[in-house]
Amino acid sequence: MDPTKVTIPPMKDLTDENITANTHIINSQGPDKRLQFLMHSLVSHLHDFARETRLTTDEWMGAIHFLTATGQKCTDTRQEFILLSDTLGLSMLVDAMNHPKPPGATEGTVLGPFHTHDALEFENGESICSAGKGEAMLVLCTLRDTAGRPVVGASVDIWETDETGHYDTQYADRGGPDCRGILRSGEDGFWFKGIRPVPYPVPTDGPVGDMLLKLKRHAYRPSHMHFKINAPGFDELVTALYVRGDPYETSDAVFGVKSSLIIDLRKIEDAALAAKHGMQVGDWLLVHDFVIITNEESDALRRAQAKEALRKLGSVAMLNSDGLPTAAELD
Amino acid sequence: MDPTKVTIPPMKDLTDENITANTHIINSQGPDKRLQFLMHSLVSHLHDFARETRLTTDEWMGAIHFLTATGQKCTDTRQEFILLSDTLGLSMLVDAMNHPKPPGATEGTVLGPFHTHDALEFENGESICSAGKGEAMLVLCTLRDTAGRPVVGASVDIWETDETGHYDTQYADRGGPDCRGILRSGEDGFWFKGIRPVPYPVPTDGPVGDMLLKLKRHAYRPSHMHFKINAPGFDELVTALYVRGDPYETSDAVFGVKSSLIIDLRKIEDAALAAKHGMQVGDWLLVHDFVIITNEESDALRRAQAKEALRKLGSVAMLNSDGLPTAAELD
Repeated sequence: MDPTKVTIPPMKDLTDENITANTHIINSQGPDKRLQFLMHSLVSHLHDFARETRLTTDEWMGAIHFLTATGQKCTDTRQEFILLSDTLGLSMLVDAMNHPKPPGATEGTVLGPFHTHDALEFENGESICSAGKGEAMLVLCTLRDTAGRPVVGASVDIWETDETGHYDTQYADRGGPDCRGILRSGEDGFWFKGIRPVPYPVPTDGPVGDMLLKLKRHAYRPSHMHFKINAPGFDELVTALYVRGDPYETSDAVFGVKSSLIIDLRKIEDAALAAKHGMQVGDWLLVHDFVIITNEESDALRRAQAKEALRKLGSVAMLNSDGLPTAAELD
Repeated sequence: MDPTKVTIPPMKDLTDENITANTHIINSQGPDKRLQFLMHSLVSHLHDFARETRLTTDEWMGAIHFLTATGQKCTDTRQEFILLSDTLGLSMLVDAMNHPKPPGATEGTVLGPFHTHDALEFENGESICSAGKGEAMLVLCTLRDTAGRPVVGASVDIWETDETGHYDTQYADRGGPDCRGILRSGEDGFWFKGIRPVPYPVPTDGPVGDMLLKLKRHAYRPSHMHFKINAPGFDELVTALYVRGDPYETSDAVFGVKSSLIIDLRKIEDAALAAKHGMQVGDWLLVHDFVIITNEESDALRRAQAKEALRKLGSVAMLNSDGLPTAAELD
């Protein structure tokens, strides 16, 4: 860049007292006012964190190494930074703000690091798990809008671990997707065969596992099955159902459990039902009614909650056309 | 972990309003009170950042990808996270807090991502650059304590770019260290041959470069030469000398310039001096007096500044034996 084009005020002799204000100035030269707002908040909090903790050079270098190792642990099928976000409660917070739900709608929860984009499509009634996996479970679901009308044609993406608590992406010899699949909803909802969920630890062989160990936190998630539901005109629902009575129900390592998402796992008692779905009496049965909300419902709620939250925080930020706080236009 | 050993209060139904307090509880189970304090501050700021900005799911995923790419850009000779810290002003802040200097002592500045651990040792008077590099420059320095006594036997680690603005670690075919070296100080200080520093852009072929571009920031650092000085009993000095009049003197991409570190580059006029050092009249000459402080001086100053800073912030944190704020012992 041509130095004669530098338009910021002269900047040198930066100290712990003036570095933050000057970083804001140098970050405020671009046209993207939302990005400016994000950077202003990020830099303020990052610097305040260092100032309040009197972060030492060794601790700073430790953080550099931790973040580097976290990035380098990531692969096409492993996302250690999402796991870090999950274990620090950030993922839950971001989901809550972006996908608020009115009473009666199915609540959301963390996506987690194990969703993939290579799940196969299945017909309703098929098994998303290969033969020999876990204890067979029949899953019967309805899918409706908040007015009680069936939502037809939704894409329902489902994933769960095998009976040992491992996702297919954790297999050393992963050939392709397993214990995951995509269904289309009909007038009657969607139904499929899976296996009974089990509790499992999040991966602990990386930097996040080291962090949990140092903090004396356990790494377990209670038994659950993930669902990601997309339908035209509706807000994406990322959620999971949790099996009631799991020993980790109230200490989930990634803060995902919500009372409304805890379900009672039953056994199939009706021989006709078993026969209809090619199951045995005594196999596990999960029945649940999902309710999703429209983009309009979601957007209105999100904007209202953002306004209220900013009011509580005493923020005077302007809201842009997306209802997001943004830096003021200076010209 | 045995779930019967979980001692935290039951935790579920986490929302954007209660997630932060509950993350603090789950992070407060270990014995390391300093780590607890760091995590408490980190999580508070991380969550407040998301809440204040109403961080969107897309922006969150963008950040996940940015951090992942930053980690994956790092190699043995490339540290993209240090570059990120430098460009966000964090490195300058951490150095200022950890290595405060009394009047008269040489100020510190950013280490940057280009220091290596494989620099060779040189005798005073030798050239740290291989033949054919840049415009020859003689560097004559003294090294004293704050009482004016010479500091003998210090390790002085020096690094600079070549005349094209590239460090040796940026060479595709790097065979070994170049334009870097380690000297030992004597009664007369230390002296060596290098080349005239030039301005250069920080590496822009990674995520940090993308960030600077989006923020319309230039990537340049003004001409400088790095020094890292270690002597038994003395606080490590990480600093650099900047050439007066550089076009980027007041807009350094990493906020490193301090008035006291800007030096006047002269030319050798004295034929005897030139002859003594195997230089030519007209070659560049850099003369500087470094003053380093003892560990005791540094420690006392750091503790006093930490106390004062925490008082200003209204913090009631306890200070541990290192003078660092820490979580209170609960038992």
